[in-house]
Amino acid sequence: MQIPTFDDVLAAHERIRPHVHETPVFTSSTFNRLTGAELFFKCENFQKAGVFKARGASNAVFSLSDEQADKGVATHSSGNHGLSLSYAAGRRGIPCTVVMPRTAPEAKKEAVRGYGGTVVECEPSTSSREAVFAEVVASTGAEFVHPYNDPRVIAGQGTCSRELMAQVEGLDAVIAPIGGGGMVSGTCLTLSNIAPEVEIYAAEPKQADDAYRSFKAGHIIADDAPVTVADGLKVPLKDLTWHFVSNHVTDILLAEEQEIIDAMYLIWQRMKIVVEPSSAVTLATIFKNKERFAGKRVGVILTGGNVDLKKLPWM
Amino acid sequence: MQIPTFDDVLAAHERIRPHVHETPVFTSSTFNRLTGAELFFKCENFQKAGVFKARGASNAVFSLSDEQADKGVATHSSGNHGLSLSYAAGRRGIPCTVVMPRTAPEAKKEAVRGYGGTVVECEPSTSSREAVFAEVVASTGAEFVHPYNDPRVIAGQGTCSRELMAQVEGLDAVIAPIGGGGMVSGTCLTLSNIAPEVEIYAAEPKQADDAYRSFKAGHIIADDAPVTVADGLKVPLKDLTWHFVSNHVTDILLAEEQEIIDAMYLIWQRMKIVVEPSSAVTLATIFKNKERFAGKRVGVILTGGNVDLKKLPWM
Repeated sequence: MQIPTFDDVLAAHERIRPHVHETPVFTSSTFNRLTGAELFFKCENFQKAGVFKARGASNAVFSLSDEQADKGVATHSSGNHGLSLSYAAGRRGIPCTVVMPRTAPEAKKEAVRGYGGTVVECEPSTSSREAVFAEVVASTGAEFVHPYNDPRVIAGQGTCSRELMAQVEGLDAVIAPIGGGGMVSGTCLTLSNIAPEVEIYAAEPKQADDAYRSFKAGHIIADDAPVTVADGLKVPLKDLTWHFVSNHVTDILLAEEQEIIDAMYLIWQRMKIVVEPSSAVTLATIFKNKERFAGKRVGVILTGGNVDLKKLPWM
Repeated sequence: MQIPTFDDVLAAHERIRPHVHETPVFTSSTFNRLTGAELFFKCENFQKAGVFKARGASNAVFSLSDEQADKGVATHSSGNHGLSLSYAAGRRGIPCTVVMPRTAPEAKKEAVRGYGGTVVECEPSTSSREAVFAEVVASTGAEFVHPYNDPRVIAGQGTCSRELMAQVEGLDAVIAPIGGGGMVSGTCLTLSNIAPEVEIYAAEPKQADDAYRSFKAGHIIADDAPVTVADGLKVPLKDLTWHFVSNHVTDILLAEEQEIIDAMYLIWQRMKIVVEPSSAVTLATIFKNKERFAGKRVGVILTGGNVDLKKLPWM
């Protein structure tokens, strides 16, 4: 296990700067009034590929040797990581293969192809996915980039809170949603180095509370097949992300499904921005834990905006 | 007819600065690629009350004498102007009455009340609206603030393009949607004074093309009862706005209903922001008139983001 350092975050930031946005920070007088806190929303929904994962993926792709880059990169993800890796590979002009279940929505496959990636279909089972993915790597020699349990990816995600700390003075806390823990780990890595006094909260759907239960138990507990509207947050912690979560997170807070949907709706309605359900878990948990955040300056990471506009959860 | 001057815009800007946002300017590499132009989106969907009209309404409200302010303001608008006037009156702490048809959506009435305004219901006919409104003004002495045919309102809207010109260098053109012509008039007023070389385009739904036909005919032609998804753009030009449109607008461009919906969908999907249909008419007309904008730096005013999230036009 190779644990990334803050120097890796600094190197990542230089490396990816031409390929990602410095996303803006939004405030909302409505949400400040409703929560009693001062909230600073870091809008990664405006990031390239619509999600913070463009940071980690770009860092992984642009740190490859030329020789490795020629062989390309590969991953298995029907979601934001596949999209982000395709984006980053497209920027470097190298091949990217994404193994996706043939049952995945056509729109997601099209999005990967739109950035120049190649979609290879597997059956919707773990065994088929692993077999097809092994075949892809064997035949192409592509470098596997894991969605979060990869030091290059975590260092890349760490650039987000580095920006946030430069954009907003005097934050008391930062909160981010947690699935596999890539964003939270990057946040821990950066803040523990440049602002160790800032509290770090992770927000998780109650129906996919494996990180919460792991945190309380002191070891990784993986959910079997969690069901939540926040579909980016279904994956379990792995050894690298567990390292950061167990050492640096202040607490993990939970939200019910309807609370997540309500918070998402409110963000769209009041802030006029498109965020995906995973992004709304943070605000939902702040509403539930007002006493904890009241009077504090809180950075809230809105992780992404990739959502099917024709199938919204409140419809 | 009292025509506002650029000095009025400058005074308005000082007056309303504490009460409105300097909204950000967004760019989109996708839309630049699709259009061949460089587009700079002025995001008035992030404005207070969710719409540029907070500028004009705030200027009207904060230029009242204390004596007049005590009696409050009134208007008849079931849309963004009623909301904006309520917002501005709330900031000054004075009464605001909005006459609305009893058949208007409850959510719109609630939104006006949410800013502290009073809703007085009328029957859904022009005669009832006028009778009820006259009664309100007679009993309260409230100042009528017209949604657009008012020099204070036009001067307020003119602050938007003043900001835009300070935010983006070297614009070749600015395009805004046109309904009654308040935003377009404010844009004309400002640009004709500080950047007369910049072309000014107005974008209008083909199904509510009264401004287009007026522009071509050389006199005001009012539509009877236009039907368009861009419901903020159904109202006709009036003498003040006709003055600016006829003297300063370069051209008026039209878009079909489906083109407006498609452009709106694309803005949500790619830029991750919530805009109302009226805001999308501009991009729809740019897509249709690429040769006119190719290679140019174009300011695109996204006028507002107030939309019923449960009833989207592509559903």
